[in-house]
Amino acid sequence: MKAIQLIHKDQSPVIAEIPVPIESDGAILIKVSCAALNHRDLWIVKGKYAKIKYPVIPGSDLCGYFNGQRVLVNPGMNWGDNESVQSKQFHILGLPENGCFAEYVSVPKEYIYPAPEHLTNEQAAALPLAGITAYRALFTKCNARPGENILITGIGGGVAVQTLQFAIAHGMNVYVSSSSDSKIQKAISLGARGGVNYLNDNWDQELNSISGGVHIVIDSAGGNPFGKLINVCLPAARICLYGGSLGLISELSPQVIFWKQLSIFGTVMGTPLEFGKMLSFVIQHKLLPVVDSVYQMTDVSAAFDRMERKQQFGKIVLRINE
Amino acid sequence: MKAIQLIHKDQSPVIAEIPVPIESDGAILIKVSCAALNHRDLWIVKGKYAKIKYPVIPGSDLCGYFNGQRVLVNPGMNWGDNESVQSKQFHILGLPENGCFAEYVSVPKEYIYPAPEHLTNEQAAALPLAGITAYRALFTKCNARPGENILITGIGGGVAVQTLQFAIAHGMNVYVSSSSDSKIQKAISLGARGGVNYLNDNWDQELNSISGGVHIVIDSAGGNPFGKLINVCLPAARICLYGGSLGLISELSPQVIFWKQLSIFGTVMGTPLEFGKMLSFVIQHKLLPVVDSVYQMTDVSAAFDRMERKQQFGKIVLRINE
Repeated sequence: MKAIQLIHKDQSPVIAEIPVPIESDGAILIKVSCAALNHRDLWIVKGKYAKIKYPVIPGSDLCGYFNGQRVLVNPGMNWGDNESVQSKQFHILGLPENGCFAEYVSVPKEYIYPAPEHLTNEQAAALPLAGITAYRALFTKCNARPGENILITGIGGGVAVQTLQFAIAHGMNVYVSSSSDSKIQKAISLGARGGVNYLNDNWDQELNSISGGVHIVIDSAGGNPFGKLINVCLPAARICLYGGSLGLISELSPQVIFWKQLSIFGTVMGTPLEFGKMLSFVIQHKLLPVVDSVYQMTDVSAAFDRMERKQQFGKIVLRINE
Repeated sequence: MKAIQLIHKDQSPVIAEIPVPIESDGAILIKVSCAALNHRDLWIVKGKYAKIKYPVIPGSDLCGYFNGQRVLVNPGMNWGDNESVQSKQFHILGLPENGCFAEYVSVPKEYIYPAPEHLTNEQAAALPLAGITAYRALFTKCNARPGENILITGIGGGVAVQTLQFAIAHGMNVYVSSSSDSKIQKAISLGARGGVNYLNDNWDQELNSISGGVHIVIDSAGGNPFGKLINVCLPAARICLYGGSLGLISELSPQVIFWKQLSIFGTVMGTPLEFGKMLSFVIQHKLLPVVDSVYQMTDVSAAFDRMERKQQFGKIVLRINE
């Protein structure tokens, strides 16, 4: 079969011809139709992820076929018994085990779900990792309620856009931030009430003036802007952090945190139970995950290039088998 | 009556002779036996608190008499309807209204509680503000469970020492930090399993080696050491922040926060319901709040001096009426 393989740390991904994985007890073989990129894949390709082993086939998100049924996969494996946090055995499809940027992928049975019928293969592939992360952040961690104001930072990223969809479906007032005005406009066209460019020094004041403050923040960035996030928080607001693309947090005021009685939660993916609930939510609200662009498998480098330049709004999809 | 009064911003507190407050509908007059200092009072005396009005009598913690009954007061007033956060009308006895560093204080009826019988007047005065803050942080915010490991930073401060007592009574394994080795030794003599001096660069590694990591941190400081707090946290740990004596938080890793799925909570005082529960807990476990030292009312400057030099371990008490 054809697979996108990483051979060495400092080498671009190659299209390799390798044996189809062997079906085993408990694990089944899925013929992959579409796969979607995550930032995790980019870091793995760049050699910047922890504990990379070579060779490896990356890829966590897919829509494919098993026994004629259209399926997708919960890529978060071995979560463990504690709903509050993943176990030490937790791992994500696509490292260390081979992932789904290949014509076939072997996945333990219990992680397979029927793909929601109202989605195309591309849309279904776009859903799993972003969907589970957004669902846990918004509902489990932040206990989001209809009518609340929410700020979603870094709009354009897969989790951010999926959170926007969930929040709007849940009846929330959505505000976004980005370093790109055109991404803010796209978010507004999807139902956001407004947005601010965090490159403006006074973005926090701007956001307060358009929103009156927010009850929830879903943040992927950390870094310097995090210190200002708490300025847009209403009393008792909840902040959920699922990424750290802007690095270490600094200039964060403990006085604001305690006087407003803020809660700051870290989150990673989600439990199998949450994955099932997330799918139900998508089906119930007939949500269509936002596909930014679709690349042929052979154009994988161009796909990663688009992600590295932060040009996408929604998910970048690879077409694997026609 | 005699009262400790602040007349102007840049003037030390004076012992003034002023009229006894008039009893009014809803508010009753308490004859103050003992009062206790809080950091808040120090900041007010230094002119560093928000919205100070002059003249004012500071003081939030007291034990006194009303109708021959020994009483104490919940100093957190007008909390409001939202258990998650205090209302805009919330204020603390001792600013803007006159507080209890006086022979008499007028307090709305609903904030008066019988003083626990097993406590001396000094111990009872030491309890309210530190007790309610510690109770909410430990139980409401962090959902502390017996057998869990807890780090209490800045041991010696009133809330920290009260948290230590509550945690030990609750069957937890207590670790402490301080910049003073002798305070760490005092904490150990009260039942802590160990402690680390946060002036040592590798205090986080030291603490991990003696504790194996902690499930809960109760922090009063923020500042630079906060970035290392998350290194001693076990997965799914909860951090509660009730102060910011070391200033802005910096070098805080979002990756550690999200991968460990940490929760960081800000907290202020507590609700009337929590105040009642706190008193019950103290009575049930026959806890004796730690009194660091007792000063006569006329020695108030020496008392504040002791607090400013961070010499205390537990509460500094003023004897008002013999």
